[in-house]
Amino acid sequence: MIDRLVIIGVGLIGGSLARALRRSGAVGEIVGVGRSAANLEAAVELGVVDRFEFDAAEAVRGADMVVVAVTLGASAAILETIGPALDENTFVTDVGSTKLSVVASARAALGARFPNFVPGHPIAGTERSGVKASFAELFEDHKVILTPVSETREEALHAVVSLWRATGASVVEMEAAHHDQVLAATSHLPHLLAYTLVDMLAAAKDSSEMFEFAAGGFRDFTRIASSNPEMWRDIILANREAVLQMCEMYADRFETLRRAIEAGDGAAIEVIFERAKLVRDRSVVSPHPSKRPAEHAVLPLKRGDGDQ
Amino acid sequence: MIDRLVIIGVGLIGGSLARALRRSGAVGEIVGVGRSAANLEAAVELGVVDRFEFDAAEAVRGADMVVVAVTLGASAAILETIGPALDENTFVTDVGSTKLSVVASARAALGARFPNFVPGHPIAGTERSGVKASFAELFEDHKVILTPVSETREEALHAVVSLWRATGASVVEMEAAHHDQVLAATSHLPHLLAYTLVDMLAAAKDSSEMFEFAAGGFRDFTRIASSNPEMWRDIILANREAVLQMCEMYADRFETLRRAIEAGDGAAIEVIFERAKLVRDRSVVSPHPSKRPAEHAVLPLKRGDGDQ
Repeated sequence: MIDRLVIIGVGLIGGSLARALRRSGAVGEIVGVGRSAANLEAAVELGVVDRFEFDAAEAVRGADMVVVAVTLGASAAILETIGPALDENTFVTDVGSTKLSVVASARAALGARFPNFVPGHPIAGTERSGVKASFAELFEDHKVILTPVSETREEALHAVVSLWRATGASVVEMEAAHHDQVLAATSHLPHLLAYTLVDMLAAAKDSSEMFEFAAGGFRDFTRIASSNPEMWRDIILANREAVLQMCEMYADRFETLRRAIEAGDGAAIEVIFERAKLVRDRSVVSPHPSKRPAEHAVLPLKRGDGDQ
Repeated sequence: MIDRLVIIGVGLIGGSLARALRRSGAVGEIVGVGRSAANLEAAVELGVVDRFEFDAAEAVRGADMVVVAVTLGASAAILETIGPALDENTFVTDVGSTKLSVVASARAALGARFPNFVPGHPIAGTERSGVKASFAELFEDHKVILTPVSETREEALHAVVSLWRATGASVVEMEAAHHDQVLAATSHLPHLLAYTLVDMLAAAKDSSEMFEFAAGGFRDFTRIASSNPEMWRDIILANREAVLQMCEMYADRFETLRRAIEAGDGAAIEVIFERAKLVRDRSVVSPHPSKRPAEHAVLPLKRGDGDQ
């Protein structure tokens, strides 16, 4: 039981975590921290948090658990702000999409409290953001990766494991560097590929026609290009080395395939396609492609929802 | 009303077309043609076709409408087989994913009957194949592109437009060359990108872990790599020039983004992401991301369903 939980950044992830923990009865009071009064007021109205504060240092005093759920670019500043205000029994975790960068920030910012910090990353999300997009089921049957370091206290780790299990997620531990490699390949690179495709088609002279005739596969492919640009810029920069490595591997393989097409080498093309299909069908076995409530299962249809 | 409809290739597309036309009452007898007795028997059992034949030339005699719904690699041979057997009042259409290549084959194979041929391409599909994957709603609210040429008879065009409208699809006409460009960008290139990504991850030493931690966006992205490899090899080769052009444009843009990441140029990265998100959110407005019955909305979970 967490008597007082402080969530800094009450957006899709922070808000969904609050909802899930509230539902599970694993938490007493939930305090939201953020910069946008409108978003925080919405969070109170929706029952996602009990109250909110703008001053993160003030909010974390006396808390049992603090979750830093801001964008990656903002997390170092938040850790510096809260570092001096943390009690010795307050555990801290985060939800950042890269982990080496966050571990370095936390080590620098938290000083003597660093052993109470458990770096974390829930592998869940949608292309939407803000507390209104949050829902209690977001983490159900999803994985949460924790990347504790040698200094991390066992009690802190146990508390954060319990927190995530209460949301219906399963928890795995791995090294921060390994996490960053795996995510560069399975998440950061795919986002780059989708952004590049949409940007290229947008520049075509018959661009609107391109999108008009786009069928299912294309829509799936480009959905991730609807993700928050600022957030993704931060992720890519925070994980630059691993991302660059994946980009180079990808460009090499794409060039190999392009050459096979240029040469009209049907056998070589088919081998690549066959291998991909086989591995893909064998590996992607989650029966929950879209375990979200119905209102979240639709594509964003509004024009210019750039504030999401 | 089509008294006798012959569908050559009773798979996902041919089968779904038969189901949709049957449902609409727009057709009398439906005859299926194919090579696999098991698939054709299943088609009769499922009520998709009334009867079947193995000999395409035999089947098309006296038909009102013939739909060639085989894979692209097989369509030239089918057109050659049926050419001499076609009546002067039998209209023919196809569903091939590229159109210049099909127009060339049809012109060579159909001789005096070529004006009765209307090249077509329904922009609909799933990664599944075979008659068991077919469903009557596949074409509802989807587009069908027809690419008639100067020789095409008006009556043939009208008949094929009516056929597709009866399925709930909307019909657009364009030049075959333009069709091939648009599809290279919105369908063929995305498939190449997804196949390349999956193939690259499959080759990684921690490949199974990669797929284990893949979240929603990645699953969406790679779903199209589950498509039939042989079919896609044929499509890519049939549309080689347009595909190569798109590959080169894509590789250029990807390299531009990679360089911005390498330089740590957050502003340049964000501009690309912003532009893509804006165009994507404004353009992909279909309210039917998955207008299929529930059993089709799930991912293929079977292992090694390479026969699909």
